[in-house]
Formats: sequence, C-alpha cells, structure tokens
Amino acid sequence: MVEFKIIHKDKHTRARAGILKTPHGKIETPVFMPVGTKATVKTMTAEELKKIDVRIILSNAYHLYLRPGHDLIKEAGGLHEFMHWDGPILTDSGGFQVFSLSEMREVTEDGVEFRSVIDGSTHFFTPEKVIEIEEAIGADIIMVLDEPTGYPVEKEYAEAAVRRTFEWAKRCKNSQKTDQALFGVVQGGTYEDLRKMSAELTVELDFPGYAIGGLSVGEPHSVMFEVLDYTVPVLPNSRPRYVMGLGNPTSLIESVSLGVDMFDCVLPTRIARNGLALTTVGKVNIRNAKYARDFSPLDPGHDCYVCGNYTRAYIRHLVQSNEILGSRLLTWHNLAYLIDVMRGAREAILEDRFVEFRDAYLTKHEKEFGLV
Amino acid sequence: MVEFKIIHKDKHTRARAGILKTPHGKIETPVFMPVGTKATVKTMTAEELKKIDVRIILSNAYHLYLRPGHDLIKEAGGLHEFMHWDGPILTDSGGFQVFSLSEMREVTEDGVEFRSVIDGSTHFFTPEKVIEIEEAIGADIIMVLDEPTGYPVEKEYAEAAVRRTFEWAKRCKNSQKTDQALFGVVQGGTYEDLRKMSAELTVELDFPGYAIGGLSVGEPHSVMFEVLDYTVPVLPNSRPRYVMGLGNPTSLIESVSLGVDMFDCVLPTRIARNGLALTTVGKVNIRNAKYARDFSPLDPGHDCYVCGNYTRAYIRHLVQSNEILGSRLLTWHNLAYLIDVMRGAREAILEDRFVEFRDAYLTKHEKEFGLV
Repeated sequence: MVEFKIIHKDKHTRARAGILKTPHGKIETPVFMPVGTKATVKTMTAEELKKIDVRIILSNAYHLYLRPGHDLIKEAGGLHEFMHWDGPILTDSGGFQVFSLSEMREVTEDGVEFRSVIDGSTHFFTPEKVIEIEEAIGADIIMVLDEPTGYPVEKEYAEAAVRRTFEWAKRCKNSQKTDQALFGVVQGGTYEDLRKMSAELTVELDFPGYAIGGLSVGEPHSVMFEVLDYTVPVLPNSRPRYVMGLGNPTSLIESVSLGVDMFDCVLPTRIARNGLALTTVGKVNIRNAKYARDFSPLDPGHDCYVCGNYTRAYIRHLVQSNEILGSRLLTWHNLAYLIDVMRGAREAILEDRFVEFRDAYLTKHEKEFGLV
Repeated sequence: MVEFKIIHKDKHTRARAGILKTPHGKIETPVFMPVGTKATVKTMTAEELKKIDVRIILSNAYHLYLRPGHDLIKEAGGLHEFMHWDGPILTDSGGFQVFSLSEMREVTEDGVEFRSVIDGSTHFFTPEKVIEIEEAIGADIIMVLDEPTGYPVEKEYAEAAVRRTFEWAKRCKNSQKTDQALFGVVQGGTYEDLRKMSAELTVELDFPGYAIGGLSVGEPHSVMFEVLDYTVPVLPNSRPRYVMGLGNPTSLIESVSLGVDMFDCVLPTRIARNGLALTTVGKVNIRNAKYARDFSPLDPGHDCYVCGNYTRAYIRHLVQSNEILGSRLLTWHNLAYLIDVMRGAREAILEDRFVEFRDAYLTKHEKEFGLV
C-alpha cells in the first residue's frame, strides 16, 4: 500500500508538494517517473538513476508480459529483484500499449484481444488477467486496465470507453489479491461531461490514487490543460493525481499548477537517443554542425555528471559516430534535467513562490519545449 | 616518454612482469589494452574502466583522423581531455585500418592512398602525416606507420612490406617533434627470415618499445605462436613488446609465456555486443534459451559489478530486447574478466608459478577460447 501526505499547498494555484510513501521508499511529489519499458530505463543502471535522484520508475506490464513473461519475473522474485532496482516502481496496465501498438485489436465488454508486437501472436487481456500480470511483476503501484481513446474521438465511443473503463476498474479491484496500490484511471477524451463522469465513477471506487489517461495523444496543448482544469477538481485532494504519458517540461510545470502530482513519459530518454538535449538554455540538437567545435558543457547552467565532464563537441562526435556512450550521456543529462526541474517546482511550492517559478520557466521555455 | 622496468622474470618461460611508466600513470605488465576506436571504449565511461582496473586504452589514429579530425582533438586539448580519460593512451598509426578497411588503396614508397570508410573521399598517409596526426591526438604511446600483410602472403610482397615498414619507421622517427613514446612495428608475415630481418632492422632504430604486427590475421594459432617464438628473442629484453590485435584470453596467456607484455583487441567489447561472454566457466552465449530462467550470475566464479548484481536471465532478456544495458553489462564483464586474467598471469609470474597458471588456464579454456 501507499500513503500520501500533502506537505504544502500553493496559495495561488492548485499546486501541492507531497510525500508518497511506498514499500520501497518515499517519493517527493511532484515527481517525474522515468520509463523503464522493458525492465530497464534505456541505457541507465539503477545506480545511475539514484545518482540523479530518480525516486520511482515506471515499467510496462504489456511489454513485460510479452517478454520475458510475467511468470518469469515472478520466478526471479519480482521486477525489483529481476532488474536490480530497489526503489519504488509503478506498472501501467498495458491498456495504452494494447490500444496504441496493436494493429489488430478487438474490444468486448469482457476485455480486449490484440496481437503481440513481437511475433503477431494473439492475446486476450481481461481486467483479471492484467491484475494477475501486475501482481506477478510486483510493482508498488499498479494501474487498472483502461481503454484510452485518441484525439479526435467521437463522443459516443468516448462514452462507451468511459463505461468500459469503469466496469474494468471494478473488476480489477475485485480480483486484486495483493496490497499493491491500485490506481484508477479517468478517461473521457476532451468532453467535459464525460471526463467529469469518468472521474466521479472512478472516485466512487475509492482508489489510493487516480490517473488521468488519454491525454497528450494529439490534442492541442490548450485543450489538454482545459481537460486537466475541469477534471482534477473532481478527484479527491487527499490522493495523488497522475497524468499518464506527459514529459515535456513546460507541460509538467503547467500540470503541476493544475494540481497534478505524478508524471511519466519516454520523452527525455527517447529524444536523447535521437541526439536531443533539454537544457537550461533551451533545446540542443547535438548533431547540429555548430556544436562540432563547441568545447563548452552540454548545458552550461546544469550540474550533473555529463555537464561536469564532457563537452558538446565530444558528445556530438559520439552521436555522429552512433556510439552508445552518446545515447548514455544524453539520456543521463535529460533525466537529470527533468528531475531537477521537478525538484525546482517542489521547492518553489514549499517556499510559496510557485507562480513566479512557473511563469519564469514558461516564459523562458514554453515556445520550444512545448513543441518537443 | 615512457620507462620500462622488468620486476620479475619467470624461470621456465620468457614471461616477465614489468612496470611501464607513462606521463599519465604506471602500467603493470603484462597488460591488456581495451580498444576505444573512436575516442570511446564502446559503451563504457572512463570511471567504469577505472573501476575494473583498466590502466591504458588504445585508440585509432585512422578513425580519429577521419572523424572528428585530429585538428579538432588538438583544439580540445588532446584526446585525454576530449574523451575525459586521464590514464595512459596508445594510438595505432592507422596502418592496419588503411590496409584492412579500405577497398581501394595504393601503396608507394612515399605512403599509401586510401578511401575513407565514412564517405569514400581520398586521403594520403605518409609517415610524416601519421606522426602529425598522432602528435595532435597526443597519446602517451604512438606507433609508426607500417604495412601489415595478411595471411597467406607471397614472400616477395612480405619482404617489400618489411622494407617499406622499415623506411617508414625511419621517417616517422625523424619527423617526430614531441617526446611521446614512438614504438616500432615488426612485420614479415609467417616467414622466419623476414620476421627476424624486420625485427633486426627495427631494433637498429632504437625505439622505446616494439610491436609485432600482422598476426592474428587468419593464420593457424600454432603458426602465430611459432612466429612469436622466433621473433621475440630478436627484440631487446629491456623494452616492452606488444602484439597488436590479439584478444582471446588463451592466446594472451600463451603469448605472455613467449615474452609479450602488451595486447589490444576489440574482441571482448565486440563479442559483448553480440551477446557473448568470456567467463571462468567458459563461453556463455547469453542468447541461448537455456539461460532464460537462469537466475545465477553471468559468471558465478567472477567478482565484478555485473556478476554481483545481475542474473543471466536478466542479461539475456536485455540482449533479446536489443537493450543498450545488455551491451553495457556484457562489455563491462568481458573487460573485467580479461583484465583479471592478465592480473592473474602477472601475479603468477611474480610468485614463480606461471607455468602452473598457464597450463591450468590453457587446459581449462584452450578449446573454446581458442576459437573465439
């Protein structure tokens, strides 16, 4: 189980600083959770994640179910043991992957049939099956099976997905045998009445935390923030709120302002492998020729192992040469940067200067990070 | 400059334990030098190399000349500074790359013309040019431009290559402006008279160290050891001897027995990226299905970060999933293993039990490591 405690609330926004206690350690919120899709945060070891103060990581039940298999992970002693990470873990239910990765999928009230991205084989996820998988994996926080919708989505379909997500949430809850913290998920597309209905239905089931799913799927940023603005107040103040799949720093800060506590996204790790860094001086596309003889740090305003020991010229050389160390260094920095931004937001909340922090950050970065 | 001191000689073989002092630190010999082809030992940081007690690394003048360019490295303050490695470095001259990587090459007495592996552009290496490049890169030990021959090679051609290598060595020496330690290279294919002639000619030029090149290029192992057996005695006892491009552990131990002090090879790092580990219980091809649920360490008899913290099942999962961490962990272990084998050889020499050490190692591993 988890315990959530709000330490301090901002007076001018809905931002709050909290502590989420889990069986594997305390998490200070707001928090960004790096994604370890296949039981590894790409390129990073656990020790490195700890060095940059990562407190919780996310892994994907869908991917782990397909490979190496949740039974194998259970046999290994659970995911913490398997991947050599003793901090908190959250697993998502696989709902998002089933609906975004599979070419073929068939949804019924009972569950969803899909084809594996690995070998095309057919699989069937029910709420009960997903809970079985997440229990075998053994994360501290697990998610209900939901049906995320894309953008745009017809209202009729969005409403059906909300109702299915609610029915599935009940079944997930009923089938759970462990004391892992099971979070509910709110859907409803960009329809205010559906989002509110979904939030109310989910809250009725009394989960220890609530996620807002189906966002950052192509809708304009302003629409996403509208959804958060009218959905968050329906969720109880006393429980952590988690927006799934959001990773660009400016959106994180805006969402914190709207009362969100937890985030995850592949963005910082994925763009790193494409040569892109998030820095205090903006986006740095290290492949750009202008960095060839730039012997300054990747981010002159940032203090991390990468910025303290390597130059842009060297990292560019590594990336141009497809060297793994290039991906490692950019991933390291991007995660460290994002963790530091969230720490900055938290400190600003605690010190009653969150609005200034938010406005300064957005003024500086919104234009370019908003487009990452 | 470097200073080489022999600490102890084995009574029954030509094996010796020495110390090679360089401007960036002392190296205990016999030593294996991991290869950092493009200014990075693939997947590893400098800190990690130090953790497994790597004392010297090799980098390739050919690759660095093409990308990012030796002038850029000079501007960065030299290779140590550029790549964030403050230990000793050896650069090879590019001779091997010119002759093995280029489809087109044209050798004249003056030098060798070749096409870049990156963009097909034409380049011309002379001994003077190579020294200019190696001086810009700034390694502690640099190599003369040589002309390696393959296997088999006609005697007439091998002899011409020996003479060219000698002439080029003279020119390299004459054009050198720094006090980097310039090593000569012995060629001659598998012809005893040519090898001896090449060794004598090279020794005449009085280099602080001698490499034996053109080995491990397809000849049977027994032939390679014959060549070492009759070539090494021509080289002065007081100088370090280096066999280029040799990396399988059993060959290293046999070569130490024949009086060789230094080795380099991409083998441990390259096979790691193909899922292959060198272990105290033999070769482990981690992709093998039998390791899927093997929750024991990669090498149960080895003490390193990888073997202490990860299971075969997990590493197999990473490799099967093409995860970078898989390459990292296997590279880490393979280098640690090879460094430890060489340390074991050195300790055996110092403790007058090298023959037992060698025989036990070869009996245990020759069959499979000989084929790596």
